[in-house]
Amino acid sequence: MNIEHYFDWAATSPADEDILKESLDLFLNNWANPSSAHKEGKNARKLLEDARELCALKLGVKSNQITFTSGGTESDQIVLLSMLEKPKAGTILISSIEHPAIREQALALKNCGWNIVQIPSDKAGIITPEAVKKCLTEDTMLVCVMAVNNETGAIQPVYEIADLLTKTYAGKRKPKFHTDCVQAAGKIQLNLNHDGIDSAAFSAHKICGPKGIGILYNKVPLTPFLKGGGQENGIRSGTENVMGAVAFSKCLERYYNKDNSEQAVITVSFVKSLSELKGCTIVPEARLENPQNYSPYVIQAAFENIPGNVMLRALDSQGFYISTGSACSTKKNSRPILEAMNVDSKIRETAVRFSFGPHTTKKAVDELLNAVAAVNQQFNT
Amino acid sequence: MNIEHYFDWAATSPADEDILKESLDLFLNNWANPSSAHKEGKNARKLLEDARELCALKLGVKSNQITFTSGGTESDQIVLLSMLEKPKAGTILISSIEHPAIREQALALKNCGWNIVQIPSDKAGIITPEAVKKCLTEDTMLVCVMAVNNETGAIQPVYEIADLLTKTYAGKRKPKFHTDCVQAAGKIQLNLNHDGIDSAAFSAHKICGPKGIGILYNKVPLTPFLKGGGQENGIRSGTENVMGAVAFSKCLERYYNKDNSEQAVITVSFVKSLSELKGCTIVPEARLENPQNYSPYVIQAAFENIPGNVMLRALDSQGFYISTGSACSTKKNSRPILEAMNVDSKIRETAVRFSFGPHTTKKAVDELLNAVAAVNQQFNT
Repeated sequence: MNIEHYFDWAATSPADEDILKESLDLFLNNWANPSSAHKEGKNARKLLEDARELCALKLGVKSNQITFTSGGTESDQIVLLSMLEKPKAGTILISSIEHPAIREQALALKNCGWNIVQIPSDKAGIITPEAVKKCLTEDTMLVCVMAVNNETGAIQPVYEIADLLTKTYAGKRKPKFHTDCVQAAGKIQLNLNHDGIDSAAFSAHKICGPKGIGILYNKVPLTPFLKGGGQENGIRSGTENVMGAVAFSKCLERYYNKDNSEQAVITVSFVKSLSELKGCTIVPEARLENPQNYSPYVIQAAFENIPGNVMLRALDSQGFYISTGSACSTKKNSRPILEAMNVDSKIRETAVRFSFGPHTTKKAVDELLNAVAAVNQQFNT
Repeated sequence: MNIEHYFDWAATSPADEDILKESLDLFLNNWANPSSAHKEGKNARKLLEDARELCALKLGVKSNQITFTSGGTESDQIVLLSMLEKPKAGTILISSIEHPAIREQALALKNCGWNIVQIPSDKAGIITPEAVKKCLTEDTMLVCVMAVNNETGAIQPVYEIADLLTKTYAGKRKPKFHTDCVQAAGKIQLNLNHDGIDSAAFSAHKICGPKGIGILYNKVPLTPFLKGGGQENGIRSGTENVMGAVAFSKCLERYYNKDNSEQAVITVSFVKSLSELKGCTIVPEARLENPQNYSPYVIQAAFENIPGNVMLRALDSQGFYISTGSACSTKKNSRPILEAMNVDSKIRETAVRFSFGPHTTKKAVDELLNAVAAVNQQFNT
């Protein structure tokens, strides 16, 4: 497979062969159960805890704030479901542009008496602190706003939202603030220690790690509703995925919080060139004015007269891999995130996502642009 | 690590190096997201679906009845939590000797209005159909009884319980019957097609696979409460752990439903020899009379005057690895399964678990017996 022409990094990233092979070797030498009291169990425990230390170091937090999970989805679910341990149901605010791991799981909590409110997005695909403020209620117990949107790349003002919550609830019980960082990790700088951020979700396979391992950061331990053997300090039960944890730690070491300024330059130029193609609309158009508000790794664009799937297949046949919507919703025709942004239905149907990663080169992006332009020309002359 | 003297297979099993390396190589060549619509996504999808086909073939079920999960715990949780999608709360029966993945998760559902009833065990560590029958109520919607107990090895009469439910509810809505097969897979013959069995949980790392991958068998699809991107036919959201699925399929091929008669002979002799040691009590004692009711791979025994941890450490220092209780509860001092069997507190405190696997040899078991006898002699002369 030609990694160079892979532009679907937001769906998943090419697994780092060195890291995965090294992690497997370490696991094969330490395959015991980390909860076993004998010597081999202790060896496995040490490998797991060393991985946790490295993750904590790279994320800039304490190791006892790191819970290994099976992925970003489970990390989000644990936070949402912990609400079921509260003595009384209340309100949960979620942004209207969340990943389904937040959106669908939150909506499921309605069955248990919870009130779920979706914070509206502006046309730029951004959840403003003002929009959050308007949704706050007396009984709001959790607020979920992702750090980077998976379809538009819009960087959400999570620090300002955290500040708003801290200020609004000074001297009172602040609602917990959770941010899904799955598309942000390795793409933009993150600071989990910012006051007011209570939890964050991460997934290894988005930064060249294996599938099936995630991290939940918790500033202070939560009381989980998902229960079992009580591993991971009771926050996530089930025998720990030691190989996954080791690989994730090494991926964070190699790919987390790296400088993205070179990619930013490449992407701004790519977006500008796309926008000049006949019939092309950048989604949202605000990106052209304010590129700094968008991750340089995720671009959404629509091409008049070209249904998203047609563009995808035309590029696919030439070995360029892109997507329509998120991989997590390819089986559905709806585009809930674009709908939440009030994007016109014609644009929604013709929108595709280009997503980049640390291996993406300027040359490859230029080749992508040429390929897109050629397809576009067939439909828009 | 000396696999030969590893007698803690019920905690986890030695990872099969060939299978894991081959699975990693297959994944590294097919690392795209199985939900991606492009060619590379389709390749990853094919690898995943081929793994599912092989799992289905080996488990003797249809591939659309197989859901990949992150492990046995999550498989159990999905079934229990699906109850929250019911229009009205009712009663869930769980055996009193379940793994905490069932017991603790079921108890958490009390918060949501569910009535949780624990079916008593007899002194032999067995949940009889009669005991189940006595617990059935009008509003029972789920019954959970594991196939093999993780501490005593007691084989539960799950087929008879399934028959009881089928018969009792003929013409009515039968409660769902779920059986945790984590300790049964690869150890005793299983038949998931037996009428009345609705779902079953499996974990790869108990049969030489990687940690972090499990299977949930569902006769007919359930409506999950855990939600997200809708992968795995909506039953388990989150990007699929393709490497794990491939490895699990190969482990089922190599280790599932194998003949265990040779091990049975070794274990019967081991149990008899243990029972002849001064101060030793087999738990439960009924095992001596009815060895066929116990998995030949899990043995619980108590040694007078020797706290479980002392026996564990004494053997550990000689390179023999055993456990007290299950690895999933080593941090707690309580022994809920033995308590449920009404095992005397003195026996509980001095009980340890020896657990075997397909690599266990008669020679190694003889060496274990000698080592145990030597430790025992220091305390019981």
